[in-house]
Amino acid sequence: MGLPDPVLAGLREIVGPDHLLTAPEDLIPYSFDGTAALQQMPGCVVFPRETAQVSAILKLAQRTRTPVVTRGSGTGLSGGSVPVPDCIVLCLARMDRILELDRANLTLLAEAGATTQAIAEAAAAAGLFYPPDPGSMKISTIGGNVAENSGGLRGLKYGITRNYVMGLEVVLADGEVFFTGNKCVKDVAGYSLKDLFIGSEGTLGVITKVLLRLIPRPAAKKTLLALYDQMEAAAQTVSDIIASQIIPCTLEFLDRTTLQCVEAYAHVGLPLDCEAVLLMETDGHPAAVQEEAARMEAIARRNGAREVRVAGDEAEAMRLAAARRNAFSALARVAPTTILEDATVPRSELARMVRFVQEVARKYNLKIGTFGHMGDGNLHPTFLTDERNPEEMHRVEAAAREIFQEAIRLGGTITGEHGVGLAKKPFLPLQLNPVEMRVLKQLRQVLDPQGILNPGKMFD
Amino acid sequence: MGLPDPVLAGLREIVGPDHLLTAPEDLIPYSFDGTAALQQMPGCVVFPRETAQVSAILKLAQRTRTPVVTRGSGTGLSGGSVPVPDCIVLCLARMDRILELDRANLTLLAEAGATTQAIAEAAAAAGLFYPPDPGSMKISTIGGNVAENSGGLRGLKYGITRNYVMGLEVVLADGEVFFTGNKCVKDVAGYSLKDLFIGSEGTLGVITKVLLRLIPRPAAKKTLLALYDQMEAAAQTVSDIIASQIIPCTLEFLDRTTLQCVEAYAHVGLPLDCEAVLLMETDGHPAAVQEEAARMEAIARRNGAREVRVAGDEAEAMRLAAARRNAFSALARVAPTTILEDATVPRSELARMVRFVQEVARKYNLKIGTFGHMGDGNLHPTFLTDERNPEEMHRVEAAAREIFQEAIRLGGTITGEHGVGLAKKPFLPLQLNPVEMRVLKQLRQVLDPQGILNPGKMFD
Repeated sequence: MGLPDPVLAGLREIVGPDHLLTAPEDLIPYSFDGTAALQQMPGCVVFPRETAQVSAILKLAQRTRTPVVTRGSGTGLSGGSVPVPDCIVLCLARMDRILELDRANLTLLAEAGATTQAIAEAAAAAGLFYPPDPGSMKISTIGGNVAENSGGLRGLKYGITRNYVMGLEVVLADGEVFFTGNKCVKDVAGYSLKDLFIGSEGTLGVITKVLLRLIPRPAAKKTLLALYDQMEAAAQTVSDIIASQIIPCTLEFLDRTTLQCVEAYAHVGLPLDCEAVLLMETDGHPAAVQEEAARMEAIARRNGAREVRVAGDEAEAMRLAAARRNAFSALARVAPTTILEDATVPRSELARMVRFVQEVARKYNLKIGTFGHMGDGNLHPTFLTDERNPEEMHRVEAAAREIFQEAIRLGGTITGEHGVGLAKKPFLPLQLNPVEMRVLKQLRQVLDPQGILNPGKMFD
Repeated sequence: MGLPDPVLAGLREIVGPDHLLTAPEDLIPYSFDGTAALQQMPGCVVFPRETAQVSAILKLAQRTRTPVVTRGSGTGLSGGSVPVPDCIVLCLARMDRILELDRANLTLLAEAGATTQAIAEAAAAAGLFYPPDPGSMKISTIGGNVAENSGGLRGLKYGITRNYVMGLEVVLADGEVFFTGNKCVKDVAGYSLKDLFIGSEGTLGVITKVLLRLIPRPAAKKTLLALYDQMEAAAQTVSDIIASQIIPCTLEFLDRTTLQCVEAYAHVGLPLDCEAVLLMETDGHPAAVQEEAARMEAIARRNGAREVRVAGDEAEAMRLAAARRNAFSALARVAPTTILEDATVPRSELARMVRFVQEVARKYNLKIGTFGHMGDGNLHPTFLTDERNPEEMHRVEAAAREIFQEAIRLGGTITGEHGVGLAKKPFLPLQLNPVEMRVLKQLRQVLDPQGILNPGKMFD
């Protein structure tokens, strides 16, 4: 198979020979993303350096009915950027310039291939703050963050990627280019097209530029770690904190399996027999931070935390946060295949959901470490498994299905921040009703009538 | 003309005779909304009391190809709820129940006809806060707020209606009903349909229920009023406040024309020769509020404010805020017709825009009072005119067009918070490029193929 020569010749003409990969050994790194057990060789990889090239590539793809899978750094966890057979992989990593930082309007304009980290650093250099912090932010691209509407640890207080997007440059499937949005804090002229493209996972158009909102940096921050013998006590701590009108910037959770893996990996000095660990951070005005930290500590102790560690300085805060920041790496180390889910429930259902995951692990005789964003109900049950063992993989699938069904039953979602992609596609109809599914398909039909953009993903 | 008898009989059967108006004298109050100089008698007004009735009404309308204009309290300022000839006015005011306040998840579920005020009060009664505060909030409905994506005075710090909508129940043009969204802080399963319906001005579906996010109430608040001899000094104060990393909850502005009208109306004790007045409010932790208020006062003085009044208590804060809160009423009192625009620009262009409005007023020999949300660039140039004077109305139209063009030239928008409706429809193609216009039309075509919902509005 492979792509027809005229398609490859056309692409070479658009981007030049240095920006097209076709040799099988060059394509391998682009045959998968961060999602376990999904791989597919593409027909080629093309690296545009400007929007006009993206437009020309899509026009060529449209004319030749060639599928296009857009990607940035390929850190996705739902298979959203895994190629489809004989597709063009449109990699935006070389469109990575930060084009403008506007201090008067608190905005930043970047090309889609700029990394989240580069954006966070550019904001910080201007004394400002870009809050969304997906786990992969060191290498993930802002285009990917927008396409997946990425979350992160600060979602509870600061919101997610969607809340910081003021404008987008988009190339439609037919190659037409437009910029939607502007630097106005308020703008209600027409439907909010940017909100339709945010989270559309590469199925409605290609995002080439992103205009972001920045905010002032919080002046102070305080980090606490609380250790519990009982899951319920940790969950009650979270509920009590919210009920007492504190919205911490971070309210993260590790279960015992995750804790044990983290300790074996990073030696952060945590007792191995804890049932749950809470990482809590408050930021803002120094007086507010001081007071909130004291109240959170008191709430944790009142709920029977066996120990609360309060960071005295930034270095200690980093050490305490390390347990949570290392969770995924630590889990990934103990098994050949790590399947990271992100079933999410309303905050009130969190303890119930964690217990359910533990029961499912027992029922199917699987190792599942759970960690996640307890403040916003966004859990990461992580299967520690081996994709070469088909029998175990069947049990993983059955267990995942039960977890998704329970999340939906509790008023939650199959994906809080990773997207649907290929990995969650079978489960989407469990969550959305048939009318909503129909509308999703109709919207895609309008914007990509030939279905060349990331075909077979989400609901396609 | 009028609606055919079978349509009226069908509606009567769906809602019962007590919930259908057909007599001309009963229809008059529903022949206009808050927008000046727009009026059209509808064929009837129907008041459903539950979603199933809305669905049945839309099925009937679809079958008989009868246009439907949805409205709440009719406070809109862009003609979005002005009837079209022989339409059914679908008034949701009798679906006004607050269905649930969930303290654990900080959410509120209400029917579309609940007033913004009722929602704010229900939240406050639970010790929580619903920040969006459109000027008409005492009577505007939440369904209307969502359909228009309403703003308000607190937009700069707290965002607008969109930022507080977690879920919507929607009835599509064909009568199909679905609920999109849930109580999860994070959910990326599928395109964000709720974001498509927010701000769609009744052209894509009928919103029947709204699930809202609430936040903790700020513990303290401080109000300041600064008086300036020069517009530039007020604008520089705003810039300096933002540059010093303060995001006040309110940063409002009145020009001299507005100030004079307010003083004549409400006698708040302001000097009539000021060029600009800034109303500033900070809220949050008491220590932060104290500090921010002191810094804002210093910044105002440094920029040459001739007087800064700081409220000592809540009563005085109310008195200071009264000048701004009364601005529209005060202006509306001095002329038979008040046309309130909401041209909006990036914050950095605000002083330039205010000057431009003043020049346009001189050029066309018109009286224009300008006030608005200076912190977020959302201006309300208000024409004080008389719709019975066609020659003057022509000058108003020409002036408005120049103002919109300048807003767009400065990277702004023709409407920051009022919507497009009928009033801004001619100007939308000036702001959006042809590709974006095409996409808007295609999206509507998908969701309302017969075009029965609010026809002729926005871009239709």
